[in-house]
Amino acid sequence: MTEQVAIGIAGVGKIARDQHLPAIAGHPGFKLIAGASRNARIDGVHNYQNVEDMLKAEPLVQAVSLCAPPQVRFAQARAALAAGKHVMLEKPPGASVTEVDVLAGLARQNQCTLFASWHSRHAPGVEAARAWLAEKAITAVNVQWKEDVRRWHPGQDWIWQPGGLGVFDPGINALSIMTRILPHTFFLKSAELFVPANRHNPIAANLDFSDALGTPIRAEFDWRHGPVELWQIEVITRDGVLRLAQGGKFLQIDAEVVDIGPEREYPSLYDRFFDLISTNASDVDVGPLQHVADAMLLGKRHEVEVFEE
Amino acid sequence: MTEQVAIGIAGVGKIARDQHLPAIAGHPGFKLIAGASRNARIDGVHNYQNVEDMLKAEPLVQAVSLCAPPQVRFAQARAALAAGKHVMLEKPPGASVTEVDVLAGLARQNQCTLFASWHSRHAPGVEAARAWLAEKAITAVNVQWKEDVRRWHPGQDWIWQPGGLGVFDPGINALSIMTRILPHTFFLKSAELFVPANRHNPIAANLDFSDALGTPIRAEFDWRHGPVELWQIEVITRDGVLRLAQGGKFLQIDAEVVDIGPEREYPSLYDRFFDLISTNASDVDVGPLQHVADAMLLGKRHEVEVFEE
Repeated sequence: MTEQVAIGIAGVGKIARDQHLPAIAGHPGFKLIAGASRNARIDGVHNYQNVEDMLKAEPLVQAVSLCAPPQVRFAQARAALAAGKHVMLEKPPGASVTEVDVLAGLARQNQCTLFASWHSRHAPGVEAARAWLAEKAITAVNVQWKEDVRRWHPGQDWIWQPGGLGVFDPGINALSIMTRILPHTFFLKSAELFVPANRHNPIAANLDFSDALGTPIRAEFDWRHGPVELWQIEVITRDGVLRLAQGGKFLQIDAEVVDIGPEREYPSLYDRFFDLISTNASDVDVGPLQHVADAMLLGKRHEVEVFEE
Repeated sequence: MTEQVAIGIAGVGKIARDQHLPAIAGHPGFKLIAGASRNARIDGVHNYQNVEDMLKAEPLVQAVSLCAPPQVRFAQARAALAAGKHVMLEKPPGASVTEVDVLAGLARQNQCTLFASWHSRHAPGVEAARAWLAEKAITAVNVQWKEDVRRWHPGQDWIWQPGGLGVFDPGINALSIMTRILPHTFFLKSAELFVPANRHNPIAANLDFSDALGTPIRAEFDWRHGPVELWQIEVITRDGVLRLAQGGKFLQIDAEVVDIGPEREYPSLYDRFFDLISTNASDVDVGPLQHVADAMLLGKRHEVEVFEE
């Protein structure tokens, strides 16, 4: 494939404007030709009210990037796959784990690429951390993923609705990195979920995982954090401590800061999507969402004070 | 393999006494030689306080059947697999979906059989229903799984604790049949969970599923039902209505009652376990538990009146 891939984008909200539009504009492999959004418009391309209208009016669209909240993603993805388009899903890939399995089946059936993206896995420190940890004896893992929800999710009512994940919306970024860099599959042993009295989803969660070797893996997610975000994963091994901080932009192994280059998560995501389309492949890992579902299944819920934005 | 398989049983509670012990006693392929239980003893075999002690003292045990509540199952299964034993798990196979994946990995590594059993799939009407539905155009599915919790779970405090599933403990039986007989993968669209004010898990749940074709699939689970249980699955097709009732013991297709033979769920489970051991195979389908995790992830929780046993 030497031509550019004509792409449409659906869901023109904060994440689309902050990340997807610049990444597509800067990528030589993609050409944005259409947008679908109920309320927003993208300058310089054809705009539609919804994905179905876009698909009907734009037969030249080859790929669709879905950036709307997870609660509406399935219907959009099904429509795009049924029309033979390649599909990239923002994280989380669905409102339930099983619906993502159904989408993967549809992609196979229609010979389309389905890419369930996890942008944090494309942070610059992740692959270096994975490589270093591959053969290490790990004794403990401590994860802290804490931020101010008012700063990072202003006006995003959907995060508090069923399917919106609450504090797991950022927390799933940590889980997407953990499942990538830790050499052994881990599983949830117990969890504490802190749910505001007037909300459906947790505002904070403490998760205790382990693996087949019994390694203690602790993750703390909190949306009630002060102005400076704490997005870090500390892995203690017999050969030293690895610290991935700033969401994966900073890597320290023992006392040494590792040079990992600049942050380019979303450009890297579109590189990956382009490669998958070029090789007729899909990449659908539900693992991080699986861990959140396990936490909601197994976690003990505690009511905490009401949250008003 | 012509010899009998020496088997131990762990967790000697209601389900072990009602079902597992008679099924093993009646099976020519198994010989029960040991039991592990904190409080209970099995007559005529060696008894131990826990699985670890049993494994240490009984090197001739080849297989272990785990009947304890899901919250303690992982540690028992890991110990048995690490000792090279074949393992059968009562349903649900774990307290989280991911821990079952870890057990499957351990079984592969140790070349043992792991059987995540779903006893309701062995109800006599299930395979006949599956065969009839395989090529049918399904227009709707209605599931009602309703019983009196006081009758069916007397004194079982663990069902109300995190990991104990609440009304999904019986409801997962319906899900295990649905995932077996319906020809297309289905997924949860929305759910309503009804949780007593003094309990952690739902006492009732309404679930709306669909599949890639948009088929409406509705399941209602309720533990507040009267003295006569309602365990039925109705599948409406263009060629007539299939009704599987009494938990799978009764099958009617259109107006016609189908002769499906007597109920022998647990004997059939042990047939399957024996076959898996004989062929060095495993059978681990987390699908039904996956649907419960999705329901807890996506379901809207409603507080309902306190439940006292």
